[in-house]
Amino acid sequence: MSGSLVIVGLGPGRADLITPAARDAIAHATDLVGYGPYLQRIGERPRGQRRHASGNRVEAERARHALELAGGGRRVVVVSSGDPGIFAMAATVFEAVEFGPAAWRGLDIRVEPGVTAMLAAAAEAGAPLGGDFCAISLSDNLKSWTTIARRLRSACEGDFVIALYNPASRARPHQLGQALDLLRACKGGATIVVLARAAGTGEATRLTTTLAELDPAAADMRTLLLVGSSATRAIPRAAKAPWVYTSRRALEAPS
Amino acid sequence: MSGSLVIVGLGPGRADLITPAARDAIAHATDLVGYGPYLQRIGERPRGQRRHASGNRVEAERARHALELAGGGRRVVVVSSGDPGIFAMAATVFEAVEFGPAAWRGLDIRVEPGVTAMLAAAAEAGAPLGGDFCAISLSDNLKSWTTIARRLRSACEGDFVIALYNPASRARPHQLGQALDLLRACKGGATIVVLARAAGTGEATRLTTTLAELDPAAADMRTLLLVGSSATRAIPRAAKAPWVYTSRRALEAPS
Repeated sequence: MSGSLVIVGLGPGRADLITPAARDAIAHATDLVGYGPYLQRIGERPRGQRRHASGNRVEAERARHALELAGGGRRVVVVSSGDPGIFAMAATVFEAVEFGPAAWRGLDIRVEPGVTAMLAAAAEAGAPLGGDFCAISLSDNLKSWTTIARRLRSACEGDFVIALYNPASRARPHQLGQALDLLRACKGGATIVVLARAAGTGEATRLTTTLAELDPAAADMRTLLLVGSSATRAIPRAAKAPWVYTSRRALEAPS
Repeated sequence: MSGSLVIVGLGPGRADLITPAARDAIAHATDLVGYGPYLQRIGERPRGQRRHASGNRVEAERARHALELAGGGRRVVVVSSGDPGIFAMAATVFEAVEFGPAAWRGLDIRVEPGVTAMLAAAAEAGAPLGGDFCAISLSDNLKSWTTIARRLRSACEGDFVIALYNPASRARPHQLGQALDLLRACKGGATIVVLARAAGTGEATRLTTTLAELDPAAADMRTLLLVGSSATRAIPRAAKAPWVYTSRRALEAPS
């Protein structure tokens, strides 16, 4: 088979955060496959390039479709937002390969990394990911709440900074509240939290607060939460949002 | 003060992984500040742009120097490898601001995100960061081994994929072995591990193995380790390195 498949990360939204490698892969594709709004972010359209848009709840079908196109000899690019390996399409494609026709293992499949939402959010706030950190998706589409709660507890016990992806959606309005109750019980109410909405896009907004004061209703589908460790601090500024950073020197437990 | 300071991530090494935003900040700087080898990665040199190279163990001094230049009205760029917010210069700069002259809080300081090593390593291997994950630096320059061990244990208990930055150096030849012993006791020997060396550069190499079989001597200062969760799998291929990915469906504990 001479087809190929590149899974590309478009970054968080700003055009100047798309890597040249991602742009290059897109420019050379015969077929682009992805969630409709992500495909719309790609401006130019080389003559004859086909676009295959799909909804955001059909990831496995989209992955198989892309693999079939590549298997048929097309140069396919699957587009993801952010980095394709972080809560996005790359794992879905490889899962389809593992359980698909043996011939798919012979395909030329490549992943092009991108700036994931957590990095864009952290950059806008200062350096809240400066120490050891975890990333947890609160979506329970693909895992149980038991698993999510276990991970939140472990991340707390390890005094990690925690990036919470997918903190809220219309289908699960109460879950973030439960997650915050759990974190508050373990980390303490004074822990700094950054709510970054639409980070890395032209519409970014940001709220810096604490676990005690955070209202879960302030988060929506476009929000990413960064919950501090014991070494996360805010630097107040006159008439501006504070900078938030995590010292690379961990506070040592008294033990 | 009219000076400015942008802390920029150059990505892992490949020129086509540098974001246009990072390139643009560098092109407009009057002064570049950074670890010598990172400055050398930047090719063109606008007329009159000054470069201030320093060693890799003087991060706090470098941060203060950059802030002093910005305070004096210069347009300063501090360059980091990867993403500047991940085990790099951004946190060091903000820590210098917090404990420095009050006037530094009035400076125009900005962070430009980049592709951090973990994302480049994951992309080359497949999608090993497809589920919830942690990033831990094994360097004990800035935190105790007690803290590192506590975090490794918590990350294990939460069944996270674990990215280990700075796994080895000449000054700490035995630490990675201790970390692996700890992980093996908790995660089990069959856990998949990817050793990614020089990921995202032109010289990338990769070894896929298991916790049971991994020889700590295979890692050096340019290596990043990705230690799987219970949902991390390898897809064997004929005459090629396997793809490694983590299913977004978490394996649920029997509880």
